[in-house]
Amino acid sequence: MSRLKKKLRSRKAGLPPGALIHIGDIKTKAISLSLVDFGPESYSEHELADLASLDAVPHTAGVRWLNVHGVHDPALLAAIGERFALHPLVIEDILNTDQRPKADDYDDYLFVVAHLYNTDPDLTEVARDQISLVVGHDFVLSFQERSTGIFAPLRQRLRADRSPLRRVGGDYLAYSMLDAIVDSYFGVTENLHERSEQLEEEILGKQNTGTLQGIHDLKRTAMQLRRTLWPLRETLNSLYRSQADFFRPETQLYLRDVYDHTVHVLESLEDLRDLLTGLLDIYLTTVSNRVNVEVRRLTVVATIFMPATLIAGIFGMNFRAMPWLEEGGGFWRAIAAMVGVALGLAGVFWRRLLLR
Amino acid sequence: MSRLKKKLRSRKAGLPPGALIHIGDIKTKAISLSLVDFGPESYSEHELADLASLDAVPHTAGVRWLNVHGVHDPALLAAIGERFALHPLVIEDILNTDQRPKADDYDDYLFVVAHLYNTDPDLTEVARDQISLVVGHDFVLSFQERSTGIFAPLRQRLRADRSPLRRVGGDYLAYSMLDAIVDSYFGVTENLHERSEQLEEEILGKQNTGTLQGIHDLKRTAMQLRRTLWPLRETLNSLYRSQADFFRPETQLYLRDVYDHTVHVLESLEDLRDLLTGLLDIYLTTVSNRVNVEVRRLTVVATIFMPATLIAGIFGMNFRAMPWLEEGGGFWRAIAAMVGVALGLAGVFWRRLLLR
Amino acid sequence: MSRLKKKLRSRKAGLPPGALIHIGDIKTKAISLSLVDFGPESYSEHELADLASLDAVPHTAGVRWLNVHGVHDPALLAAIGERFALHPLVIEDILNTDQRPKADDYDDYLFVVAHLYNTDPDLTEVARDQISLVVGHDFVLSFQERSTGIFAPLRQRLRADRSPLRRVGGDYLAYSMLDAIVDSYFGVTENLHERSEQLEEEILGKQNTGTLQGIHDLKRTAMQLRRTLWPLRETLNSLYRSQADFFRPETQLYLRDVYDHTVHVLESLEDLRDLLTGLLDIYLTTVSNRVNVEVRRLTVVATIFMPATLIAGIFGMNFRAMPWLEEGGGFWRAIAAMVGVALGLAGVFWRRLLLR
Amino acid sequence: MSRLKKKLRSRKAGLPPGALIHIGDIKTKAISLSLVDFGPESYSEHELADLASLDAVPHTAGVRWLNVHGVHDPALLAAIGERFALHPLVIEDILNTDQRPKADDYDDYLFVVAHLYNTDPDLTEVARDQISLVVGHDFVLSFQERSTGIFAPLRQRLRADRSPLRRVGGDYLAYSMLDAIVDSYFGVTENLHERSEQLEEEILGKQNTGTLQGIHDLKRTAMQLRRTLWPLRETLNSLYRSQADFFRPETQLYLRDVYDHTVHVLESLEDLRDLLTGLLDIYLTTVSNRVNVEVRRLTVVATIFMPATLIAGIFGMNFRAMPWLEEGGGFWRAIAAMVGVALGLAGVFWRRLLLR
Amino acid sequence: MSRLKKKLRSRKAGLPPGALIHIGDIKTKAISLSLVDFGPESYSEHELADLASLDAVPHTAGVRWLNVHGVHDPALLAAIGERFALHPLVIEDILNTDQRPKADDYDDYLFVVAHLYNTDPDLTEVARDQISLVVGHDFVLSFQERSTGIFAPLRQRLRADRSPLRRVGGDYLAYSMLDAIVDSYFGVTENLHERSEQLEEEILGKQNTGTLQGIHDLKRTAMQLRRTLWPLRETLNSLYRSQADFFRPETQLYLRDVYDHTVHVLESLEDLRDLLTGLLDIYLTTVSNRVNVEVRRLTVVATIFMPATLIAGIFGMNFRAMPWLEEGGGFWRAIAAMVGVALGLAGVFWRRLLLR
Repeated sequence: MSRLKKKLRSRKAGLPPGALIHIGDIKTKAISLSLVDFGPESYSEHELADLASLDAVPHTAGVRWLNVHGVHDPALLAAIGERFALHPLVIEDILNTDQRPKADDYDDYLFVVAHLYNTDPDLTEVARDQISLVVGHDFVLSFQERSTGIFAPLRQRLRADRSPLRRVGGDYLAYSMLDAIVDSYFGVTENLHERSEQLEEEILGKQNTGTLQGIHDLKRTAMQLRRTLWPLRETLNSLYRSQADFFRPETQLYLRDVYDHTVHVLESLEDLRDLLTGLLDIYLTTVSNRVNVEVRRLTVVATIFMPATLIAGIFGMNFRAMPWLEEGGGFWRAIAAMVGVALGLAGVFWRRLLLR
Repeated sequence: MSRLKKKLRSRKAGLPPGALIHIGDIKTKAISLSLVDFGPESYSEHELADLASLDAVPHTAGVRWLNVHGVHDPALLAAIGERFALHPLVIEDILNTDQRPKADDYDDYLFVVAHLYNTDPDLTEVARDQISLVVGHDFVLSFQERSTGIFAPLRQRLRADRSPLRRVGGDYLAYSMLDAIVDSYFGVTENLHERSEQLEEEILGKQNTGTLQGIHDLKRTAMQLRRTLWPLRETLNSLYRSQADFFRPETQLYLRDVYDHTVHVLESLEDLRDLLTGLLDIYLTTVSNRVNVEVRRLTVVATIFMPATLIAGIFGMNFRAMPWLEEGGGFWRAIAAMVGVALGLAGVFWRRLLLR
Repeated sequence: MSRLKKKLRSRKAGLPPGALIHIGDIKTKAISLSLVDFGPESYSEHELADLASLDAVPHTAGVRWLNVHGVHDPALLAAIGERFALHPLVIEDILNTDQRPKADDYDDYLFVVAHLYNTDPDLTEVARDQISLVVGHDFVLSFQERSTGIFAPLRQRLRADRSPLRRVGGDYLAYSMLDAIVDSYFGVTENLHERSEQLEEEILGKQNTGTLQGIHDLKRTAMQLRRTLWPLRETLNSLYRSQADFFRPETQLYLRDVYDHTVHVLESLEDLRDLLTGLLDIYLTTVSNRVNVEVRRLTVVATIFMPATLIAGIFGMNFRAMPWLEEGGGFWRAIAAMVGVALGLAGVFWRRLLLR
Repeated sequence: MSRLKKKLRSRKAGLPPGALIHIGDIKTKAISLSLVDFGPESYSEHELADLASLDAVPHTAGVRWLNVHGVHDPALLAAIGERFALHPLVIEDILNTDQRPKADDYDDYLFVVAHLYNTDPDLTEVARDQISLVVGHDFVLSFQERSTGIFAPLRQRLRADRSPLRRVGGDYLAYSMLDAIVDSYFGVTENLHERSEQLEEEILGKQNTGTLQGIHDLKRTAMQLRRTLWPLRETLNSLYRSQADFFRPETQLYLRDVYDHTVHVLESLEDLRDLLTGLLDIYLTTVSNRVNVEVRRLTVVATIFMPATLIAGIFGMNFRAMPWLEEGGGFWRAIAAMVGVALGLAGVFWRRLLLR
Repeated sequence: MSRLKKKLRSRKAGLPPGALIHIGDIKTKAISLSLVDFGPESYSEHELADLASLDAVPHTAGVRWLNVHGVHDPALLAAIGERFALHPLVIEDILNTDQRPKADDYDDYLFVVAHLYNTDPDLTEVARDQISLVVGHDFVLSFQERSTGIFAPLRQRLRADRSPLRRVGGDYLAYSMLDAIVDSYFGVTENLHERSEQLEEEILGKQNTGTLQGIHDLKRTAMQLRRTLWPLRETLNSLYRSQADFFRPETQLYLRDVYDHTVHVLESLEDLRDLLTGLLDIYLTTVSNRVNVEVRRLTVVATIFMPATLIAGIFGMNFRAMPWLEEGGGFWRAIAAMVGVALGLAGVFWRRLLLR
């Protein structure tokens, strides 16, 4: 719940637009800058101590990829913005880790915001990280809230001599990043579906008070994912259809593929929502059904003991002249009458009780 | 439920895009390749031992149709892809049996993914097979997860000397395949409607605990079908309206017909969904109604026995001076009073009990 | 229910597209062909024994209107198709009485499918007939499942010397047919609204178990009508806006009018759906309310008799020293106490019971 | 309810299109024709005895506005239609007081249908009048079902010497009429909101059986208004955006304003619908809550008297050797035990009872 | 509730369009006019006594910003309208504090209406102020219902020597105002989310009768905000995409940013609505669950005391020959039987009671 609240940026109210303030949790203490410079024939990797050492690294003809972990230092980001001639709004958006996914075209570069989701198997909460990409003609900047390892496989592939990734340029690198991000949604959605299955079993088996809360939480998480995926889908759609020259036609084919994946996850989330609504209906009906069973049980108990009590009451009356009272077997006959009536009525209701 | 989960492709996360990995269940052990080479005047059919023997078959002026059963061998598919100059993404999509239906235009050929549904009358589950088609100018490739016999009638017709199918070329063959696929949906939807009717009878007759689960399952299956049919409908719509030259104008008329069929099945599924929602409402109301009946029954029992017990209690009091006690018929008068009150109150409530 | 099922055409699966098979119930035994040949100055009407006799009728400069009752003879329809050079798909669609309303433009003629609805006041079911129209430049073909008399007023008007209908040509005749068809919906919708009013009275008065079923059935019928009306609306809209030359501009004005009528019926059906949903809500609430009343009644009974029984029990105890027991009026005092407590508690609850 | 039914025009079925028949209630006995002829410098007002006297009124260079109260005389309307060269469909639509709001462009004039709503404070029903306008280049015709006084302020303003209304021409007059009509919706919607507030108070205070019916009726009225307002909104939107020359650019600015008002009323009706749905939810929950309270009360009664009755029963047993029986204070101790147990259990439940 | 009602403008019905009447509450007594005249190099600020003194202030080359607090004086607004050559509809809209947010392009200037929301932490109600902006080429007019301090930070920044705001002109000033307005929504939405969290805790903890009312109120407030935000979003979208020259391309980038913020708040409100619907479901289920618990409790009580009462009744019967009666320990054995049966049945039910 608290995440939704923190999303809101009321503390920025009153400040000039473009004011550089970090919004969100600080998820990593150390900010790290790493530079990868690659071309078809070359590859070098550098951990930078500060931004100044960036220009010390010799620039080959290929693509430069600067990756930043930790986005809570306005000064550093402002410096990077100045170094790469970024618009102040871009820096503001990177600092604010509560952006909607979007792709803004700034003529000289493309600014893409997306979110990474991952569920620690132990975590019930879904953790969200904002990833901002700046795709220029010969450079790619990536900004993450903390080190998530999501781009490690990419770097691995780049390192490989003669990697196709090295030949195709910055747009394909950017696509690969988006692909890795969208792939992360598959795992999360899979987890949600598993939890939904557990809930279904709980509902049809023995419910507990947590079941309803579980459906509610799952619905909320699915809703949250859907809210970030919709704009991401729109973003990818616009990138894939756009005429801008950041993505070459052959890369746009691949963007269509990522777009298809997003649609796929979205449909899976829609399925989940429908399933959860169905579960809630079943849950509600089950509760009503159990009221029914309880009342029925009470009826049975009352129907068995009330007549017997009446019989006992009758033979407890103080009339002088009453049948059976004086006879030796009278008591047992009365008991037999009680048991008989009880069994008879129980028999009438038993059939129904067994049906449940 | 497990199908929905398996749809998700989390195990591909981290792999390079275009990595060839089979996703889905392996539904057939033996992979079989069959080649049909036909033209207006000629027809030949070959079971191929391997891909190499493909080029050994002499190619006439007509159309080549290569059908593959079993899509879980990346190496074979990669070889086919190379042989027919297919884009790596096409091969990736064929291997992944969890695609959304779609039609991608790759200039030299058209790539179509669709799903085949069939319900074994004994099966409660609906089985889904992915069918991928590659439609080139003089060849058609079809990939199925296993042998379903869906294209057997087509082959039958092709074999017939002077079959119109042989004259019209590859686009009409591709259309005939799509038509056969869409026709398979009619049977499935028909089955679902039959199960819905059974459920309606159950609800209005004697329900059992499985009824609710039955509605839930039917809803889920209908939902699943709808999810695959919607993109198929869009796919057919785009094919029918597209300006690409894979389908000649006279074939496009037929595509419009298949498109109409898809819309028809979709509307039938919408009807089903509305009917099921209505059934759920009736079910819920019936449950509430039965609580009502139970409480009413309890009220009747209590109203009959409580006053009688009170009368018995009154005559069981130990007052020295009490009416009737000393008289001979007192006991029977008390019993008569009990029966009278019980009958009277029963009469009041009986009318209502009979109403139900 | 069975209608929905029969809609599906699973038995056509596996047959070549364009296979001529009649789908649907055979509603008339005798197939009848009637020809009307009219122009501004001439009018002739012929019952044809077979298709061959069609060409025996001299053709004037005006419009030919061939009406066919009974569409279950593939051979006859194929012959008509050949005679008027119709596309095989058209004949297939006429044979299949389970089409969606649509208008297909085949350059030389326009093919329109619509449905006729009528409710026999005694019928609870709504009967549906498919009507297919082929509108050429100098001929109109109409195909009906059986003789419904819907076009009788048209023929009446054509017969009249100097009928405006005779001057305006085939497109206006086709429009008049569509107008007659759409007018049939007004009656059906009116009937549905009447049944909805009856249900409302039942719900607010004394419900019975059929009420819920009645709402369900009415909803289903309204849904069915809506499903055929939506595509009809789209069809009329496309006809009215199309640039094809089947309808002259002055007739298109009239098409707009029919289109408006369709929208009107559709809105009336939407109203009906909203009303029925509201009725269901009221029904559900009424059921809950009655549970409430029942429980309240039980509470009153228990509250009256339980204290009285306790008092009787107290005076039935076997203590040696107990007040009142030995006194002459003790018994009556005890009875008075019982009545007093009962009246007191009844008074407390009576107010509430009276409120309902 | 009956209004919805009357909307339907089944009695027209079978008649030729364009047949002139009045549909609807006759709301005024006397048909009255009034003519206003005005220009920047002149103004004259005439009550016409019949249509023939229309041409007797000298026509100045300005605008003629003919207003007709009562639209149930087909002959008169046909004559007016002929006099102003109106299309037969226009006359048909004026006669049929059950039109959807619309604007049809007939080249020489514009035909607009709208509805006027007013709620008599005493009326629970909302009364609807259809108003048809024909806007030509130098004339405006208005047709009303009865005299409602809606255009009285307009006439007042026209009479004023140097009224701006007199300078601006027929299109501005037509706009002023539409503005007056839309303004009438504000009052009706305001009334509905007031009734909704009353219902909310009832629901949170002491409900009665009429509350549910009240929500249902209010929903129906709001639904009816929304159904007429949507097409009116579309009509105004199309007028405001159209390129036709009936409304000059400076008048179109004002049309945008009326359009905004319609949107405003529509949103207010949407609000109302949401509020009513919310009220229904609260009502349903309140009913459930009261079942809860009733059952709880029953539980309390049973829990107090059942143990006491048991104690009385115990001391009523006929064992020879029982404690307390022979002692003098035994009876009072038993009574004390009863009261004690009752108070104890009451204490346990009291807290909860007080919570409600 | 009363706000919704006051929105409606029925008292304007019958008045000529463009009539200048203030609609809404008068929120400030004193009307104040303040003028800011600024350019890159100059800045001056004036509190004006009346409109006449406006022209006394020397006009530099820069931008004039006239801010008006209090919009309930038609005469003053008419004078301002005349001074700046505004259309009468603009003045009418400023006076009517119940406008929908919109942007109307009047060629020479742009007229924008928006709403400001703020929640006093103590207030449960959300207060709404209408802000109207007129953006000309060298002037900006802002009209507020009362002094809210929303533009104070802007003035602060303008005062600063060399403020970037002073260099960029009137369009950027207008943007900054819109940005400040939209920022105010973040705070309100944050508050609503906080209240939703409180309600969730209440529902899962101990509910009270106010909870349902609380959900209802929160839903209504969220609905109200959404209704004003949707048109504001559309307004910003049209401004950002429009080709009009009020906003220079570099400012339009910033408008896109404000637009993104609006979308963000809207999505947050959608989330809130979904959450509240979920809460209502949980609330309803909780109520049903509690009925269940109550009935169960009643069943337990009845099942414990009814058998014991029966045993007491049996030993209270007056048979001559009964077992145990004459034995010394008979009484205690009977008591033991009662306790035993009670414990046994309690044991059976206890497990279930503990589960809740």
